[in-house]
Amino acid sequence: MMFRAMQLAAHAASRGEVPVAAVVYRGETILGEAANDREATSDPTGHAEVVALRRAAAVAGGWRLVDCSMAVTLEPCPMCAGALVNARISRLVYGARDPKAGAVDTLFDLCRDRRLNHRLKVFGGVMGPACGRLLTDFFAERRAQRAATRR
Amino acid sequence: MMFRAMQLAAHAASRGEVPVAAVVYRGETILGEAANDREATSDPTGHAEVVALRRAAAVAGGWRLVDCSMAVTLEPCPMCAGALVNARISRLVYGARDPKAGAVDTLFDLCRDRRLNHRLKVFGGVMGPACGRLLTDFFAERRAQRAATRR
Repeated sequence: MMFRAMQLAAHAASRGEVPVAAVVYRGETILGEAANDREATSDPTGHAEVVALRRAAAVAGGWRLVDCSMAVTLEPCPMCAGALVNARISRLVYGARDPKAGAVDTLFDLCRDRRLNHRLKVFGGVMGPACGRLLTDFFAERRAQRAATRR
Repeated sequence: MMFRAMQLAAHAASRGEVPVAAVVYRGETILGEAANDREATSDPTGHAEVVALRRAAAVAGGWRLVDCSMAVTLEPCPMCAGALVNARISRLVYGARDPKAGAVDTLFDLCRDRRLNHRLKVFGGVMGPACGRLLTDFFAERRAQRAATRR
């Protein structure tokens, strides 16, 4: 599923969106998938994880996504980690760590906090370097484009 | 604005939704408002705060809700506190504290964490007892109804 998420993320980059994407699945069945679409939709909550959860819940017919997993190319931020807990997702597989807002391992540990009413199994760093490269390439290209326009 | 949020929350209770509501405003203008609608929409991210932010951003025409405030009847959970940071909201006014998932004062302090790229001014406990009573009354009534059906 991480391959699928990476494909979606690469496609998002070509549309000018920060390349992060997520897939929600149960067994071998994809219930919902999305790339970050904050620029296109002007939605501050339009991170890949939130959009994918919303789509998966619409397909599943309820907001409790029990026995579902999510694969996402970047470590979720506080909003997205909280959304995974709220949706009762069972398993999270993420790619690159996020030093700026990572809320699963890096800055916070929101998905395994015993005070909250749900906890997830977490597998971090899966295809991490490749997922991270999508982001560094995107920002490098954007910087180069900006520098070129400034001349 | 808290009065407006309480009105919306009371209305949500009458529809069988957990009575929490939020209003996003700039100066005296309401940009977006919503009550919790997780049951009606089957959306795990359908908390009042997230829906109100989404509506406000659609009205404002962009995902950065700079100089905007939110009034909400309950202390935001991790997902919602993270969404407020992501949306660059300037000021949060909340009513009742949430001992189970409060992520602004009670369990976490996500809205004023210096490691994240945005921080909010927070005013907690505004009309807290009245906002809390909406919730305790709702759950008491639901328990009574369930007990009655069991007989």
